Amino acid sequence: MTSRVELIGLDGIPEVVPGDDLAALIADAATASGIGFADTDVLVVTQKVVSKAEDRLVDLSGVEPSDLARSWASRWGKDPRQVELVLRESASIVRMGPGGLIISRTRHGLVCANAGVDVSNVGGGNVASLLPADPDASARGIREGLRARAGTSPAVIISDSFGRPWRNGIVNVAIGSAGIEALLDLRGTPDAAGRAMQATVIALADQLASAADLAGGKVEQRPVVLVRGLAWRPSEEGASVLVMESERDLFP
Amino acid sequence: MTSRVELIGLDGIPEVVPGDDLAALIADAATASGIGFADTDVLVVTQKVVSKAEDRLVDLSGVEPSDLARSWASRWGKDPRQVELVLRESASIVRMGPGGLIISRTRHGLVCANAGVDVSNVGGGNVASLLPADPDASARGIREGLRARAGTSPAVIISDSFGRPWRNGIVNVAIGSAGIEALLDLRGTPDAAGRAMQATVIALADQLASAADLAGGKVEQRPVVLVRGLAWRPSEEGASVLVMESERDLFP
Repeated sequence: MTSRVELIGLDGIPEVVPGDDLAALIADAATASGIGFADTDVLVVTQKVVSKAEDRLVDLSGVEPSDLARSWASRWGKDPRQVELVLRESASIVRMGPGGLIISRTRHGLVCANAGVDVSNVGGGNVASLLPADPDASARGIREGLRARAGTSPAVIISDSFGRPWRNGIVNVAIGSAGIEALLDLRGTPDAAGRAMQATVIALADQLASAADLAGGKVEQRPVVLVRGLAWRPSEEGASVLVMESERDLFP
Repeated sequence: MTSRVELIGLDGIPEVVPGDDLAALIADAATASGIGFADTDVLVVTQKVVSKAEDRLVDLSGVEPSDLARSWASRWGKDPRQVELVLRESASIVRMGPGGLIISRTRHGLVCANAGVDVSNVGGGNVASLLPADPDASARGIREGLRARAGTSPAVIISDSFGRPWRNGIVNVAIGSAGIEALLDLRGTPDAAGRAMQATVIALADQLASAADLAGGKVEQRPVVLVRGLAWRPSEEGASVLVMESERDLFP
């Protein structure tokens, strides 16, 4: 007996543009691939296509940088309009570091580099993309769209790639979710020795986001990955439960 | 066309005890399951079974707590012998926080809670497990053992579950690896729009560790997960490349 989980990167999602119905694009790609969905599947969708579909795009030519943005950009050879967007998208600044790196807390409570403002992978090059305004709502919208269109409602996770303190490289995390318990609380569950597990709360949605990247990936350009075969618990809590409460934060 | 990656949790790994030949246990379990290995597979093994096999176990009754360990333990209702082990396993303390939480940097450069000292999932309850002395060497040992025994040498990752600043819940990361490029450097690779990707270095081994937890898991007690179908690059660099250089650390 083995436990098997499958990560299926969907081909056939076209270049997404503002106003696109992502659920329709996903349902069509799944049908064309002969995949189909089950209510027990988890669908992981990258933030980038969600932001594009929701028109979270900003033309840099219309951005007027503040004095702080100008001075930080000039010090580190950055585009001052892009720095300005980072500052506007930040609820608070956590660190400003060498290379012009800005680590900030967004209005969603997400702590990440550049407040999620990105110019790579966005058509043109003079356009920046912002995080979805409410990623949990984005996930619910895709889930409801799939239910209406395909009759099935897999859980949905919106993923983005974050750096981490102390570790090199980025990993995908969940910035939004719908239908799934994002935090799996195993405290009190007996382990193999019958001893209650301590402090074991698993960031399941983050692990799903990281797993999905293995079958999606930045180069392969598969923004939607289906996770099949995992036992998960339904919940309407969203991924905001992954945001640590400020009183527990040892790195403000 | 789709991209498929499979996560296969191996059943049949017995309770591991000091002195066990992990590669032999893994090879036997794979044979019994009818799975077999390919050189293109990645095998993810949890730290806990590696630490047990390598006898990184400490009987708490033989540990004499220092004054610091006594006072911290008494302040937060902890076992002073366990706190003493945490201090001994730490190269430096990063934060000591509410609830008695100690976040420290180990000699390997890993920053985590309690320096990886754990009493859950260890038989008895009066025994603590420490991290492997050299997790990259542990991974190489398993890889070489499988090559000698089964004739195939999948890449090997040693995983452990870490908390993160700013986010609730733990995720699995790679503390050791052999045979695989742990950090995937995509800088300069063109994206779909032909634009060179910036700052895109992916912590592939960490994402593999997180993915494996989906098919392994703390409750299911499957300490070994096979990842099949992923394209990865061979390397002898080990997982120590995931440890951020101190000059880049904004959270010392």
